[in-house]
Amino acid sequence: MSLPLLQLALDHTTLDAALSTARQLHPHVDIIEAGTLLCLSCGVEAVRHLRQQHPVKTLVADYKVADAGGTLAEMAFAAGANWMTVICAAPLATFASALAVAQQYQGDIQIELFGNWTLDDARQWRKLGLTQAIYHRGRDAQASGQQWNQHDLDTMKALSDLGFALSVTGGITPDDLSQFRDIDVKAFIAGRALSDGENGIACATAFHRAIGRHWGTV
Amino acid sequence: MSLPLLQLALDHTTLDAALSTARQLHPHVDIIEAGTLLCLSCGVEAVRHLRQQHPVKTLVADYKVADAGGTLAEMAFAAGANWMTVICAAPLATFASALAVAQQYQGDIQIELFGNWTLDDARQWRKLGLTQAIYHRGRDAQASGQQWNQHDLDTMKALSDLGFALSVTGGITPDDLSQFRDIDVKAFIAGRALSDGENGIACATAFHRAIGRHWGTV
Repeated sequence: MSLPLLQLALDHTTLDAALSTARQLHPHVDIIEAGTLLCLSCGVEAVRHLRQQHPVKTLVADYKVADAGGTLAEMAFAAGANWMTVICAAPLATFASALAVAQQYQGDIQIELFGNWTLDDARQWRKLGLTQAIYHRGRDAQASGQQWNQHDLDTMKALSDLGFALSVTGGITPDDLSQFRDIDVKAFIAGRALSDGENGIACATAFHRAIGRHWGTV
Repeated sequence: MSLPLLQLALDHTTLDAALSTARQLHPHVDIIEAGTLLCLSCGVEAVRHLRQQHPVKTLVADYKVADAGGTLAEMAFAAGANWMTVICAAPLATFASALAVAQQYQGDIQIELFGNWTLDDARQWRKLGLTQAIYHRGRDAQASGQQWNQHDLDTMKALSDLGFALSVTGGITPDDLSQFRDIDVKAFIAGRALSDGENGIACATAFHRAIGRHWGTV
């Protein structure tokens, strides 16, 4: 299991604000994400400009694709994305068409887990060749007070055991990380914690310290 | 039950092509949709320009929102959308926050049905005050040969009985309409059938004739 990475989610509604945050924080994060809100606000230009500004950084297009997987993947990867998200509610055919395009670009597809899905679905996703999933408390679920609980952790462990590397998101702070120690965490995704405060860099440093403390040798 | 409407889905990747199709077809359709592909390609400008070009037409932002319902609704409705889609996998809190914003704008939220959901979910959506849902064969599911079947029709009837007005989409042609006669159909949504061919207007006319034949007095 490699050390979990830190992913900066850019959920701004203007491209300038997103690019400015990325410019400030990129040396302190491992992955940059063009968030759904940014993509729906600014279009594919958001992905293209982030790629121009950060030529070698892992870049995620958080499209939460539900349909037209191949077409949207072509758009995202041609603009410079390395990974694109597909929502778990999408048909298998959408995952397959998105993954086929991703592989042409040496990219990858991440399954965005929301709502009702089963471990049988997860086994089918693995059979298709998918190896990454994103587990979260949604923004609205957080706002309504929903916490990480044993069910979340058990589900993440089960996905881990099936061979998925998980990215974890939803109001995570450095203090939360220890509870994910038994899981194959690909990345912790933070948005507003890194970009809203005055101390984004200090927050990123605190994440890396906590990751080192709980997972590794850093 | 009012007569089903005809909705033009614009799934272009450039704004000019979408606006041109809308300009040509708007007198022949009841609702214009800024499709997910168009919105992810061109951003919220797609909604804004369609509203400028068509000041009084019902306009849908097909965002398939999974999270941040209030923020995305604010973006869509402020840009001129009348309806915005939220994917069924979204938490109830996302539906609630999206609907609250929609109502401030005298707009509405449509539930986009994909993947695993249950009639119990549907009852909870009704309790929240939601009354519109979109039932479809996804583009990828169509391409892989999935047809409308009795299960689809029974499920649509059950949603109808719960009080949902349904928009139906997924490679529909005028010849298909008779099978939906027992369902409270709000709209039939067609994209490529209307915008890809040379005979979009003739196709729209054929839809309206079929609607009149099966539902009404037109």
